[in-house]
Amino acid sequence: MPSCVLTLLSDFGWQDTYVGVMKGAIAQVNPQLTVIDLTHQIPPQNIAAARFALSTAVPYFPVGTVHLAVVDPGVGGQRRATAIAVGTDLTQPFAWLVGPDNGIFGGVIEQYSVLAAVELNNSHFWRVPTPSTTFHGRDIFAPVAAYVGSGVALTELGTAIMPESLVELDLPKLSITRLTQTRSQIQGCIQAIDHFGNLVTNIPAKLIAGKSWQVVINQVEFPGRNTYSDVPLGNLVTLVGSHGWVEIAVNGGNAQQQLNLDWGYSLEVIVVS
Amino acid sequence: MPSCVLTLLSDFGWQDTYVGVMKGAIAQVNPQLTVIDLTHQIPPQNIAAARFALSTAVPYFPVGTVHLAVVDPGVGGQRRATAIAVGTDLTQPFAWLVGPDNGIFGGVIEQYSVLAAVELNNSHFWRVPTPSTTFHGRDIFAPVAAYVGSGVALTELGTAIMPESLVELDLPKLSITRLTQTRSQIQGCIQAIDHFGNLVTNIPAKLIAGKSWQVVINQVEFPGRNTYSDVPLGNLVTLVGSHGWVEIAVNGGNAQQQLNLDWGYSLEVIVVS
Amino acid sequence: MPSCVLTLLSDFGWQDTYVGVMKGAIAQVNPQLTVIDLTHQIPPQNIAAARFALSTAVPYFPVGTVHLAVVDPGVGGQRRATAIAVGTDLTQPFAWLVGPDNGIFGGVIEQYSVLAAVELNNSHFWRVPTPSTTFHGRDIFAPVAAYVGSGVALTELGTAIMPESLVELDLPKLSITRLTQTRSQIQGCIQAIDHFGNLVTNIPAKLIAGKSWQVVINQVEFPGRNTYSDVPLGNLVTLVGSHGWVEIAVNGGNAQQQLNLDWGYSLEVIVVS
Repeated sequence: MPSCVLTLLSDFGWQDTYVGVMKGAIAQVNPQLTVIDLTHQIPPQNIAAARFALSTAVPYFPVGTVHLAVVDPGVGGQRRATAIAVGTDLTQPFAWLVGPDNGIFGGVIEQYSVLAAVELNNSHFWRVPTPSTTFHGRDIFAPVAAYVGSGVALTELGTAIMPESLVELDLPKLSITRLTQTRSQIQGCIQAIDHFGNLVTNIPAKLIAGKSWQVVINQVEFPGRNTYSDVPLGNLVTLVGSHGWVEIAVNGGNAQQQLNLDWGYSLEVIVVS
Repeated sequence: MPSCVLTLLSDFGWQDTYVGVMKGAIAQVNPQLTVIDLTHQIPPQNIAAARFALSTAVPYFPVGTVHLAVVDPGVGGQRRATAIAVGTDLTQPFAWLVGPDNGIFGGVIEQYSVLAAVELNNSHFWRVPTPSTTFHGRDIFAPVAAYVGSGVALTELGTAIMPESLVELDLPKLSITRLTQTRSQIQGCIQAIDHFGNLVTNIPAKLIAGKSWQVVINQVEFPGRNTYSDVPLGNLVTLVGSHGWVEIAVNGGNAQQQLNLDWGYSLEVIVVS
Repeated sequence: MPSCVLTLLSDFGWQDTYVGVMKGAIAQVNPQLTVIDLTHQIPPQNIAAARFALSTAVPYFPVGTVHLAVVDPGVGGQRRATAIAVGTDLTQPFAWLVGPDNGIFGGVIEQYSVLAAVELNNSHFWRVPTPSTTFHGRDIFAPVAAYVGSGVALTELGTAIMPESLVELDLPKLSITRLTQTRSQIQGCIQAIDHFGNLVTNIPAKLIAGKSWQVVINQVEFPGRNTYSDVPLGNLVTLVGSHGWVEIAVNGGNAQQQLNLDWGYSLEVIVVS
């Protein structure tokens, strides 16, 4: 049986045995898979946070990795269960995505093409024919992901669905205003906060590459830097973070606490060509 | 050397390196084992919580899995160290249990038959002949579990002990009262609370299967439902949870916080045949 | 490709996907490695805490294990990136260390000899030729550690550096005073606190082995014991902990909360030969 890497992402936390039990269900199908936890501390039922986390992690995994993501407030209701192949080559997709069709995969799909998608309605690949109404992670998604990682084709898992029909989340969009011939303003927002308190915006590095730029927060301008230690300890620093987005941090400190800003806060970047 | 799945459960948390060090001791014996964490966030020294967590996880693992569980307030004292085979077929037990003989395995033993049990007193299979008095997880249980997962027979690990002599925990028992010819009352309690705030009772699904039922909390009756989304967001819902017990939840919310109920709280289920 | 055990230690926590992404970068090089988490909950940027955690874990891993440690406040600045071989046999080092040259490996180096050390300046073994300035864990250390675990020689990874030039941390030193011919006083401090609230001193077991001893805290003397249950529940107990250091605990309780002592607190041990 061929074998590959399989990642897990959820809002289950580490306190209960939910994550361990999903890995048991995976091992019942194929104990040779290399299983890697992305995170299980997505804020409960926060699909947008899961979408961001997944989109920033997928590019760093080997070709053919299966990503199982379960933040699933609609479990047991009408939402579809799905498996998706993304990449450019149908014979060897870059990644496989398995989970609820609720927008959780939108950030990955933005970066890659959808090659194929199916609704998971072939119960032959489920753990049991009558799954729990509250834990599809264990009874549907874990075994299905393990079968995908073991070489089972998408077409065996259920009915093909149109990529355009996959659910998308409403998220704030970027806007760019030309102020002068050489000076533009990018309006964005904070889209994620990591556990160091770094504030990750939705402004991608490519919009400022090779240019002079500054972030404006509460009418104070902070010039773009290269790394944390470009400013003294305890000082605010703006830079391109490791995710590839403009980021606001404090050297040796916590920007979220120091600035008291939250998810969704609007801010501007001024760019000089 | 044959290889299998080995799970870990403890109250060690992730802050220190205790869990990592146990995995080091396992890898010293056999680095080919597939090691899966069930949870390491059992409330410190809470054997009952560990007993519940383990009993709900074991059924979802492959035949022949070794479960290493260390919630061990009596470490270094008089309590026995033990390895137990459970299942129906002595030539291929469903699961192996390794840990202190303090009742932690009682919930698993309730579901399966004990095929054999030994006291771990053969120091040949320990990490060192003179183990630490405070960390048998590293010096006795981890290497022994790795040897069990590598095919070493229980009889080599120590002296056989009678299954009836294994320590049991005192836990609240269910009581069932017949109110009318068609109406019964089941008296139970909350036996576990997960990190979503779902309240898991000790009333098994089989007592209500195919019947009409309701949970009574503070004299208010809540009819049994199938899934969270059967009620509006923020509302209380009672259903059979993924563990197979009657459970109280809030759709999109936290039942423990909303009801302010705790571990051990008594409640009734009314069943109509 | 030969394969081995690779451990991870960081201050990244489990909330974000940083740890998962490092494992992705490792799997891109060699998905067959056995990857074990030591801890990712080192207090942010606390090199001393990481140094202690690593030094107490390394001895329990198989010969040839690679330890990747990233607590790296100087990332993107002038500090060197390094890989170090420790042990006694250059053809088969006991362990390999990969991470920033900021003192994080000092506790391991104290216990073993440095056989060789290199500065990681050969970008051929990095994930990308131009690494992120804020996440060397993903772009330099993870792939380099995976190559070391796959058999690549240190000399290929960069320029040799003198072991004496490796950065050391300033840490409090032990002092021993002879009070009488048979009675000595060891002055030490609390060097670590685990999640049970156990206070780990920097006084090694070998200084008290086979002798009568007591710890003096706030002018009260507590005689050395063998295990937690040597005193009644809720009582203070001093013993040699599983790390091999004199430790202060409370049987069934939390010594840090009960004594209100912190990291660095000075205390004495009186030893009678």
